[in-house]
Amino acid sequence: MINRLVEKIEQLEAPIVVGLDPMLDFVPQHIFSKAYSEKGENIEGVAEAIWQYNKGIIDATYDLIPAVKPQIAMYEQFGIEGLKVFKQTVDYSKEKGLVVIGDIKRGDIGSTSAAYATGHLGRVTVGGKTYRGFDEDFITVNPYLGSDGVKPFIDVCKEENKGLFILVKTSNPSSGEFQDQLVDGKPLYELVGKKVAEWGELHMGKDYSYIGAVVGATYPEMGKILRAMMPKTYILVPGYGAQGGKAEDLVHYFNKDGLGAIVNSSRGIIAAYKQKGYEKFGPEAYADASRQAVIDMREDLRQAWVAAKR
Amino acid sequence: MINRLVEKIEQLEAPIVVGLDPMLDFVPQHIFSKAYSEKGENIEGVAEAIWQYNKGIIDATYDLIPAVKPQIAMYEQFGIEGLKVFKQTVDYSKEKGLVVIGDIKRGDIGSTSAAYATGHLGRVTVGGKTYRGFDEDFITVNPYLGSDGVKPFIDVCKEENKGLFILVKTSNPSSGEFQDQLVDGKPLYELVGKKVAEWGELHMGKDYSYIGAVVGATYPEMGKILRAMMPKTYILVPGYGAQGGKAEDLVHYFNKDGLGAIVNSSRGIIAAYKQKGYEKFGPEAYADASRQAVIDMREDLRQAWVAAKR
Repeated sequence: MINRLVEKIEQLEAPIVVGLDPMLDFVPQHIFSKAYSEKGENIEGVAEAIWQYNKGIIDATYDLIPAVKPQIAMYEQFGIEGLKVFKQTVDYSKEKGLVVIGDIKRGDIGSTSAAYATGHLGRVTVGGKTYRGFDEDFITVNPYLGSDGVKPFIDVCKEENKGLFILVKTSNPSSGEFQDQLVDGKPLYELVGKKVAEWGELHMGKDYSYIGAVVGATYPEMGKILRAMMPKTYILVPGYGAQGGKAEDLVHYFNKDGLGAIVNSSRGIIAAYKQKGYEKFGPEAYADASRQAVIDMREDLRQAWVAAKR
Repeated sequence: MINRLVEKIEQLEAPIVVGLDPMLDFVPQHIFSKAYSEKGENIEGVAEAIWQYNKGIIDATYDLIPAVKPQIAMYEQFGIEGLKVFKQTVDYSKEKGLVVIGDIKRGDIGSTSAAYATGHLGRVTVGGKTYRGFDEDFITVNPYLGSDGVKPFIDVCKEENKGLFILVKTSNPSSGEFQDQLVDGKPLYELVGKKVAEWGELHMGKDYSYIGAVVGATYPEMGKILRAMMPKTYILVPGYGAQGGKAEDLVHYFNKDGLGAIVNSSRGIIAAYKQKGYEKFGPEAYADASRQAVIDMREDLRQAWVAAKR
C-alpha cells in the first residue's frame, strides 16, 4: 500500500492528502435542506448531509489527489449514525481509487491494540464468511504505550499489506508539553522518531516503509531533524494552511527524491468556499471551490518538493 | 459523577471496576448457539452473542460493584455491529445503576478532542432534539498531545458533570519505553502525573477531582510516588490479576481515607469460569462464576485499602 501511495503521488505530482473532517458549519445549507427533506431533521438527516457533503468533495477532487484522510472523531461525535458515514466515506473513497488514511490515533496495550488493528485494517471470519470493520488502507497510531502497543498494528499491516502513520511530533500548540521534553539531552519526539524508523524496518516497501510518521508542518526545524533521522519513513504532515504551516517550511520534510512526505489539508480544501479567494464559488459550488483549492495547493507545494530535489 | 462513584465504592466496600472486554473465546458455546439461531451465523450473530454474554455478567454482578469499564476496541473490532453492542452495554449498565467508564483512550488536537468529547460524554442538538453518541460517565484519555488536546474533554466534563481518567503510567510491559524516560532527572510519567493533578483542579468534586489518572497495578513503586503527587486524583488501576498485579501491591494506590483508587479486573471476572478455582461453575453458569470472582476480588482488595487506612 505504501508503494501504491508513492506511485500515485508521483503520477499526480501531488503529495497531498485531503482531510475529510466535516464540521457542521462547513456543510452548505442546500445540502442540509435536501438531507432533512429526505431523512427528517434528526440525527439521520445530519449524517446524510455529511455524507452528501463528503461525496461532493470526493467527486470533485479524486482525480487530482492520491489520498484522503477522514478524521474519525468528526463522525464519532454523532455516535453510530456518524460512524456509518465514516465507513461509507472510506468505502466510496476506495471505489474512486483513493488511498484512505483513517485518522484514528488509536493505541493501547497489546491485546487491545490487536483488536483495534482488526477493526480498522483487518478482518474477522464468522461462519466461513469474512467481515471487515472499517477497512482503511493506513491508520494513525499513538505511541505513548510503547512497542508492545504498536507491534500488533504492524502484524496486521503485514498480513493485509497496509500501513501506519505513528504520531511523532503533532502540529498543535501544546504538543511540546511532553513531546519536546529532553531525554538524555534529546527531545522525546526524537526518541519516538528513532523507534518509528526501527519499527519501519519490520515492514519495508520498495523505497519506503509501510510504517510512517506524523510530524506537524508547524514545527519545520524539528521536521528537518526528523527527516534526517528517518530516511525511509513517509511523513504525514498535518498543520499546513489553517493551522499555520507554510509551503516554504515544508521543503525539509521531503527527501532528495522529491518524495517522503504527504501534506494534509482539511478545512483549507473542504471548506475552501468559505475562505478568502474562493468566495466567488458560493456554497452551491462548494465542491468546485475544493477542486480549485487542491490545484492551488499542488502549485504551492511544488516549490517545496522541487527545492528538496536540488 | 466522581462523587457518585466514591459513594458507591464506599457503600459497597468494593473499589472494583469490571472490565467488559469480551473476547470471542470467552463467550460460552451455548450463547453462540442461541445467538446464531436467532440472528444467523454472521456478524450480527456474533454481536448478539457478545451482548448476551455481557448482559449475563452485568445481571450477575451489578449489585456488588460500583462500575464497569467496557473497552471499546473489543467492540470496534467488529465494526458498526460491534459498536452498537458497545452502546447497548453502556446503556444497560447505566440502567442497572452502574457508573460506566468508557475505556477509549482517545486524544487529539483541540478541535478533534472536542469532537470525541461530544461523542462520548456530550450531546448534539438537531431540530430541537438532543442526541447523545455513546454517553459514558467517564472516559480514558491519552495525554501525548498535551494540554490543548486534554482541555476540550475537561470542558465537556464540566458541562455534563462527567469525568476522565488520563493515562499516566500504563500496565503493559513496554510502557516504560517512553513513559519512564528521565526528564530533568524525573520520569516522564511523573511530569504527566503533575499535569493531571493540575488539570484536576479545574474540575473538583467533593474530596476528589473529576479528572482521574490511570496507573497500572504492575508498577507498585511508581504507584506509590504518583499517589503522593496526586492526592486528590482518583486512580484507575488496570493490570490486577491476569496481567500480574497483586493485592498487596495495591496498598500504595489508596489514600489514608481508604479511597482514591478503583481497581479493574477484566478477564479475571468475565472469564472466571475458565480459570483455576472456578471450573466447577462450567460454561452454562459463567455469570455465577463471575459473581463469585467479584466476591473473591473484594476480599482480596480489602486488605489493601484497610492497610492503607492504618
